[in-house]
Amino acid sequence: MIVQAVKWVGGVDGFLELVDQRRLPAEFVKLECRNIEALFEAIKTLAVRGAPAIGVSAAYGLVLAMQKLTSSDGLQQGLKVLAQSAESLSSSRPTAANLFWALERVRRKAEEFAGSQPGATSQELQSAGRLLAEAVLAEANAIYQEDVEMCRRIGQNGETFIKPNSSILTHCNAGALATAGQGTALSVVFEAHKKGKKFTVYVDETRPLLQGARLTAWELKQAEIDVTVICDNMAGWLMKQGKIDAVITGADRIAANGDAANKIGTYGLSILAREHSVPFYIAAPSSTFDLDINSGAEIPIEQRAAEEVTTFAKTQIAPDGINVYNPAFDVTEARDIAAIITERGVIENPNAENVSEHLR
Amino acid sequence: MIVQAVKWVGGVDGFLELVDQRRLPAEFVKLECRNIEALFEAIKTLAVRGAPAIGVSAAYGLVLAMQKLTSSDGLQQGLKVLAQSAESLSSSRPTAANLFWALERVRRKAEEFAGSQPGATSQELQSAGRLLAEAVLAEANAIYQEDVEMCRRIGQNGETFIKPNSSILTHCNAGALATAGQGTALSVVFEAHKKGKKFTVYVDETRPLLQGARLTAWELKQAEIDVTVICDNMAGWLMKQGKIDAVITGADRIAANGDAANKIGTYGLSILAREHSVPFYIAAPSSTFDLDINSGAEIPIEQRAAEEVTTFAKTQIAPDGINVYNPAFDVTEARDIAAIITERGVIENPNAENVSEHLR
Repeated sequence: MIVQAVKWVGGVDGFLELVDQRRLPAEFVKLECRNIEALFEAIKTLAVRGAPAIGVSAAYGLVLAMQKLTSSDGLQQGLKVLAQSAESLSSSRPTAANLFWALERVRRKAEEFAGSQPGATSQELQSAGRLLAEAVLAEANAIYQEDVEMCRRIGQNGETFIKPNSSILTHCNAGALATAGQGTALSVVFEAHKKGKKFTVYVDETRPLLQGARLTAWELKQAEIDVTVICDNMAGWLMKQGKIDAVITGADRIAANGDAANKIGTYGLSILAREHSVPFYIAAPSSTFDLDINSGAEIPIEQRAAEEVTTFAKTQIAPDGINVYNPAFDVTEARDIAAIITERGVIENPNAENVSEHLR
Repeated sequence: MIVQAVKWVGGVDGFLELVDQRRLPAEFVKLECRNIEALFEAIKTLAVRGAPAIGVSAAYGLVLAMQKLTSSDGLQQGLKVLAQSAESLSSSRPTAANLFWALERVRRKAEEFAGSQPGATSQELQSAGRLLAEAVLAEANAIYQEDVEMCRRIGQNGETFIKPNSSILTHCNAGALATAGQGTALSVVFEAHKKGKKFTVYVDETRPLLQGARLTAWELKQAEIDVTVICDNMAGWLMKQGKIDAVITGADRIAANGDAANKIGTYGLSILAREHSVPFYIAAPSSTFDLDINSGAEIPIEQRAAEEVTTFAKTQIAPDGINVYNPAFDVTEARDIAAIITERGVIENPNAENVSEHLR
């Protein structure tokens, strides 16, 4: 079974069901968000994570906000609640671009809807709150469906790169838990599995936050795919022994020339892959490209808190007050990427020309 | 201050003082072993670790065993206690070659001593237990002193490779905590520091057991050396940014051609170092060479328990029953080693010929 991280249950009066990722891998618990406050908390505390999953969740959060409207609330009151709720939700993860994008998209759609009702009678406008909620739900559903479809297409476009009886290595979590659909890098894996291919997936545990060990290993196991967890520092030795046939990861941002920022450790893997003649693939939506950025050198790298490295499960694992270098991402060079797989197709040996052509 | 992991306090009636490495880095506690049972427990539970430190501790453990002799015990009784104690201690860490070596060396010295007393009167032989204990202590002290001297020489032979204002990367713990002296790879660092050179040391946390974050970072901080902890998967990105000038690690076993087995992750570092034109050094005692092994391909690699990877501080970090690949070591190829530093000197660009010459 491919897990569904985000699911709206019911109509405008429904609720959002999330897989509570804070409790994985020890427990598989579903979290029902029945108001915007619960959803805010879920996003903030990483019960839901991954840019697409957060975006879709936030869009549904605006449906939850609409449920507060009463039958006497009209369009204007509805738009006001919507704007306030969007502003509130956007502060739940201040750096999540997908979050802002989804909230803005729903808000604009709601305004369009409101603008399309000028000839209605005063009475109709009075009870228009519910109609507005339906417009909001329709747009959230559209975002959801587009994400599901995008994931599926990435998988279908990439599955040919997984050879029968091969071993794949992945890093971090670019799976169903990070999207509304079946993920990006892992969608490739899931599609190959659906075709009946036999293969093994090695998963880097992905320090410091262990998304590989906690999340990727869990969702591959749920899908009954053969999976083995390794520490990040074991990947090179696996390749040396000929045990890895391909590396597939997601990406957080891709420059116009094909250089790709992804979770820290991806760059090192790309060098090790080249050394051992192992093809290295990136699977990501075409929206990951940022054409304003010419090359990876221009991508800013977020530095994160020392505590992520120095403490684990509240246990201190490094000396008091020690210096820590903790970049969240690194940049893999386009020349070390065999192909970038998007929902539109495949860019082999990516460079500025074929990236530009792919996105045209 | 360079920490002293193993220290005998007093004469034949003295005790062994260990830095309790189970409690680092949160607490710096000294453990007094006043009988062989306490020492057995300390070795078994990793209060003391690192092949040379274990060997020296076990040698002193035989002195503790001799303390049970009474004034009426003669040489034969002393030798019997010694043999029993050596057998017992050798089961505390079944795979530690240095442990067996040290115990056997002390036992043989004691037998030599006993053999040198044939003309003594019956009365003298009666009280010879104490003389035997003194011979055992003298040999344990000799092993200790040789280790201290070996460490110091490695440091002196290697410190020229640390350039002023440079950045060094190390992996795992090849420091004072692993030896009776000031370590092997870290001895190079300590000697450079004593010469007044300014430099920074980056320390890989070294999953799964985190010896880098817990132990190496701690002892470098104690010695007031500038130190920064990173996750293993960050090393490549540091090199890419030009932030690493040299890599220095220890070794567990070196083949006749210079291929070196060391903690898992070392191989990957050696490839990343070559990619970024960063020299890669190994510092280890000449006893680490195993000339019966022609190349790294013949070195057996120990596989360790899955739990080391899947649980941390009693918290589950991977799904129940997940497959894990957990090799303890990997093998770095001689061609990727700029130099091997031993107490005898330096082997630059190691190969079968210059290794053989070095050990002649």
